[in-house]
Amino acid sequence: MRRVKLGIIGVGEIGTVHATNIVRDVPGAELTAVADLRVEKARECARSLGVTKFYARTEELLADRDVEAVLICTTPESHAQILIAAAAAGKNIFCEKPLGLEPVEAEKALARVEAAGVLLQVGFNRRFDASFKRIKEHIDAGKLGTPHSVHIISRDPEPPGKEYYLLSGGILLDMTIHDFDMARHLIGDEVVEVYVAGSTLIAPWLAEHGDADTLAVILKFSRGAVGIISNSCKAVFGYDQRVEVFGERGMVSATNPLPDTTIIVNGEGHRTPPLFHFFTERYRASYAEELRSFVDSVANGTKPVVTGRDGLIGIQIATAARTSLRTGSPVRL
Amino acid sequence: MRRVKLGIIGVGEIGTVHATNIVRDVPGAELTAVADLRVEKARECARSLGVTKFYARTEELLADRDVEAVLICTTPESHAQILIAAAAAGKNIFCEKPLGLEPVEAEKALARVEAAGVLLQVGFNRRFDASFKRIKEHIDAGKLGTPHSVHIISRDPEPPGKEYYLLSGGILLDMTIHDFDMARHLIGDEVVEVYVAGSTLIAPWLAEHGDADTLAVILKFSRGAVGIISNSCKAVFGYDQRVEVFGERGMVSATNPLPDTTIIVNGEGHRTPPLFHFFTERYRASYAEELRSFVDSVANGTKPVVTGRDGLIGIQIATAARTSLRTGSPVRL
Amino acid sequence: MRRVKLGIIGVGEIGTVHATNIVRDVPGAELTAVADLRVEKARECARSLGVTKFYARTEELLADRDVEAVLICTTPESHAQILIAAAAAGKNIFCEKPLGLEPVEAEKALARVEAAGVLLQVGFNRRFDASFKRIKEHIDAGKLGTPHSVHIISRDPEPPGKEYYLLSGGILLDMTIHDFDMARHLIGDEVVEVYVAGSTLIAPWLAEHGDADTLAVILKFSRGAVGIISNSCKAVFGYDQRVEVFGERGMVSATNPLPDTTIIVNGEGHRTPPLFHFFTERYRASYAEELRSFVDSVANGTKPVVTGRDGLIGIQIATAARTSLRTGSPVRL
Amino acid sequence: MRRVKLGIIGVGEIGTVHATNIVRDVPGAELTAVADLRVEKARECARSLGVTKFYARTEELLADRDVEAVLICTTPESHAQILIAAAAAGKNIFCEKPLGLEPVEAEKALARVEAAGVLLQVGFNRRFDASFKRIKEHIDAGKLGTPHSVHIISRDPEPPGKEYYLLSGGILLDMTIHDFDMARHLIGDEVVEVYVAGSTLIAPWLAEHGDADTLAVILKFSRGAVGIISNSCKAVFGYDQRVEVFGERGMVSATNPLPDTTIIVNGEGHRTPPLFHFFTERYRASYAEELRSFVDSVANGTKPVVTGRDGLIGIQIATAARTSLRTGSPVRL
Repeated sequence: MRRVKLGIIGVGEIGTVHATNIVRDVPGAELTAVADLRVEKARECARSLGVTKFYARTEELLADRDVEAVLICTTPESHAQILIAAAAAGKNIFCEKPLGLEPVEAEKALARVEAAGVLLQVGFNRRFDASFKRIKEHIDAGKLGTPHSVHIISRDPEPPGKEYYLLSGGILLDMTIHDFDMARHLIGDEVVEVYVAGSTLIAPWLAEHGDADTLAVILKFSRGAVGIISNSCKAVFGYDQRVEVFGERGMVSATNPLPDTTIIVNGEGHRTPPLFHFFTERYRASYAEELRSFVDSVANGTKPVVTGRDGLIGIQIATAARTSLRTGSPVRL
Repeated sequence: MRRVKLGIIGVGEIGTVHATNIVRDVPGAELTAVADLRVEKARECARSLGVTKFYARTEELLADRDVEAVLICTTPESHAQILIAAAAAGKNIFCEKPLGLEPVEAEKALARVEAAGVLLQVGFNRRFDASFKRIKEHIDAGKLGTPHSVHIISRDPEPPGKEYYLLSGGILLDMTIHDFDMARHLIGDEVVEVYVAGSTLIAPWLAEHGDADTLAVILKFSRGAVGIISNSCKAVFGYDQRVEVFGERGMVSATNPLPDTTIIVNGEGHRTPPLFHFFTERYRASYAEELRSFVDSVANGTKPVVTGRDGLIGIQIATAARTSLRTGSPVRL
Repeated sequence: MRRVKLGIIGVGEIGTVHATNIVRDVPGAELTAVADLRVEKARECARSLGVTKFYARTEELLADRDVEAVLICTTPESHAQILIAAAAAGKNIFCEKPLGLEPVEAEKALARVEAAGVLLQVGFNRRFDASFKRIKEHIDAGKLGTPHSVHIISRDPEPPGKEYYLLSGGILLDMTIHDFDMARHLIGDEVVEVYVAGSTLIAPWLAEHGDADTLAVILKFSRGAVGIISNSCKAVFGYDQRVEVFGERGMVSATNPLPDTTIIVNGEGHRTPPLFHFFTERYRASYAEELRSFVDSVANGTKPVVTGRDGLIGIQIATAARTSLRTGSPVRL
Repeated sequence: MRRVKLGIIGVGEIGTVHATNIVRDVPGAELTAVADLRVEKARECARSLGVTKFYARTEELLADRDVEAVLICTTPESHAQILIAAAAAGKNIFCEKPLGLEPVEAEKALARVEAAGVLLQVGFNRRFDASFKRIKEHIDAGKLGTPHSVHIISRDPEPPGKEYYLLSGGILLDMTIHDFDMARHLIGDEVVEVYVAGSTLIAPWLAEHGDADTLAVILKFSRGAVGIISNSCKAVFGYDQRVEVFGERGMVSATNPLPDTTIIVNGEGHRTPPLFHFFTERYRASYAEELRSFVDSVANGTKPVVTGRDGLIGIQIATAARTSLRTGSPVRL
């Protein structure tokens, strides 16, 4: 079996997750090169995983003829620009969310990607989570009938650091965008209106940026279903990620996986273990699965499961949501 | 122990639940008389429970000197008027929700109740559910820290019949009012704004009344917490009633009780039993508990756990919610 | 509907449970008289439940012509003798387990009951538990196929007091007898051999009586299924009562019901409530159900769900089990 | 970090599991060579994992100076002999259970291993399962107090094939040995007596070998605790592996992990997914963990977590259990 040759641009937290997964859990690929402006990071990542080539500059990696496809894992504000450069270099692309900080920027990048005829998959990894996949299959098989509502609870264990926050595009674009994508993925319909209520109960400094740490979102879908998203930037009990879809013939949901199945029973009751702390543990398997899917698409020339358009729509909803949060009124898309 | 003498006005479904509970599960009370415009209903209820007095007319029961306290269990549109008559007769009052169909009507009735100096408890029975009580105790004990959000899922097994619907004040006043009350009860704060999105995916005729069968509600509380309510008029799997409160120090939730604890395991997975079908089964114990609490208040002259003001606020939120559903914009209270 | 007139002999803990249930939850019966050697107990029970007749002596109650059926709720060592007297008086009989302290004694009593042609139901209340009933129905409907094994975990919250213990016939006859009955009820076959291992890890004084507080039992059934019972006299977390039946087509089990459905989540994990403390809470509904079943049998002349033979077989297995515990070898029945 | 060089003898099902784990999930080791009498198997395994050396004969691999430690993954009847050869070759050894088919054989091999001064770990992989490890930690931390009983349910999805069975030493040595080890590991005490009841309800041909497919086992421990094991060779719902330890201060248990966390709700109830089918899926992580532990021991010269003595005791209990099954009487160790 031919192995697809991958290069990673940006080996921070998520880039390192992908690098490790490629080496261990993506049999159809090999990691050919990594790049990071912090060249020591690139060198260390390459060394620890037995990768021979590492670069400081994105351009160098894009110029490497051995690299067939790149993973864009830099900070969000640089995504659109690197997308354009990677498309120009003729590389197939896996890009972390969001594609850009504003719809216009993302649209422009997508146009270049399409013009270049390269393949693009966007990093909505949660679609590849085993439980959420089974929910989707259940719905697609018609077992739920018409979906009437989707509920997503999505809570981080800690608010973002300020430095990261300022590059991220805000909570709705960085965190809630996953939930927007999951909602439309599961309902199988497009959002026509979004309303957001929010407060700063955890990180008051977010208020200075017109942002919130505690969010409640209602989505209206074109065929009448409703979506509800509840976010918090700080769940002291760990990374809380649950989905429930209700419909004509019943309900299907997925709760948090736990690190083990123990139950401790004493006079205070029954106790099961704490949640996983954050995404690298909770979604570990989904990250490997999304790359296997990407590598399959590259190898076989098939359409990626998560398209550039999915990435763009996520940004559009997040942008409308930000307007709703700031104005206090629902916003049409 | 002295037993408080009760009379019930209206022995339809809920009146009969109360009548039976008084006889079986409220040791501090006795059922002295029942009244119903459909006098055959009153006679049958009295006969089956060994109650000697029954009346066709509310006035007759109110004139009965043996009756110390009355339960108003008629259809919603008559509540305010009977409240006024019962207060005038000097009876202590337990009144089913809602107190009236509009805030003004309810306010007027409450003023008369206060002027008469009689005691009034409103029928938000869910506050007496064992699980929801434990959630409240957990929060009141400070174990959750500051509450940040409350999520309520509340689904009926079937939409209301048209005839009942037209007397009920609509879905938000009849059904969601319980959730509005639970949300403010658990958060321990007042709602300042409400937003509702709704669709008619189940009972299209509701659209003619500006109403919906699938509802998503966001409540903003004065101290920044948010409330989320999800309603459906038709869950094919039974009466679905769940609550989750998230806060500074963790989370506390209550799910649906099941009729038994069996698990059937085969090649298709693990299966637990279906939910209870509707409120008379699912909330059976809470109805008895609310009457024991009412009877205690009457016997001891203490303030009821659910006050007339709680009843009024529920109507105010429901009325604002109806406006939001119809206009598509959030409404301040 | 005619109401069956009941008398209770012995109003200690279990007699009082039955008395209260008859008054509140057995519509087809009325409690006509109670008797207890401690006449003050009888008087108090009668007074609190509005029963007019009470007696100090069993003979008086048996001579009362108003009483159609009696409940024998005295201490175990007196059961056989009262059974004979009640049969002689022509009363239908509900008798708490065990029917006697030895098989011979019980056989003699049963012979008299049969000769008198009165109806007898034995107090294996757990057969009437909603969950265990559903397990039985599942098996009887053939959904499990041939049963291969049954596992019963049955733990008390506290060891018996010495005084009660000396009248009870020992742990195997008093406590494990319920599990023996449940095992043969669910497997639908008879036990041919029993092996018991036991220790005194909780109440060392039991060793003086050749008894144990920690027991592991294996039952062999005539058609090859095996039964496993695990007992403890002291579970610090409450009354632990679970059943699992495994067979050709899968498994069906029932776990402990909990007082409410709350889940408390924090950094230490997820916590559900403690178990019910003991049988009066955990099996409350089953006691009422067994009496409704008994009253139906009396009213309609139908065969009781739990027969005298079931009661006898329980004693036979318990007696063989005691021999196995003492000799260390399996014992054939 | 130095990587420990491993060779695998026997690349059937379990050998292949280990080979794959070494390459992917044991960073401290590398797979240097594989051997299998079926040389095509060895070649294919080596090729697919990028291993350069493969052998048909065990002796060749043992003579390979690059190999520091070997994994013995052949059929059970050959273990003792290969242990002796590997010890003679001075290799550190990881040996799959059982060490031999009879205690005498295993003792002899152990003596040679000790004399050679090489390190030996036995393949009781379940000790490395995340849930069972947490149970052990809970007990070792004293949170359970004195353990009173341990319950193990262990069911395979299918009975063994006859060919494999004849080389395996029988159900008790091949399957139940894991449960014997787990019971003494968790109780922290030694078994002094074993009693086994068994039937052939699934695979009648097992009766010809004095064996059974449905087993119930009681273990007596030296300090009074009891152990209960329930085995079946065919659970139609998958690989069922549960443990519960009960003690002075409560209980700790572990149930089966599920492939995902979905719950499907409809009128028939709530359904969670089926179990994993067999050990390669259910215990996948534990196999990698046991090898990381072995490699740590080799690299640091520390005592293995599972010793040769543990392996021997497992065989001793299994042998006594076989006698009990055949004679119908408990057997002292």
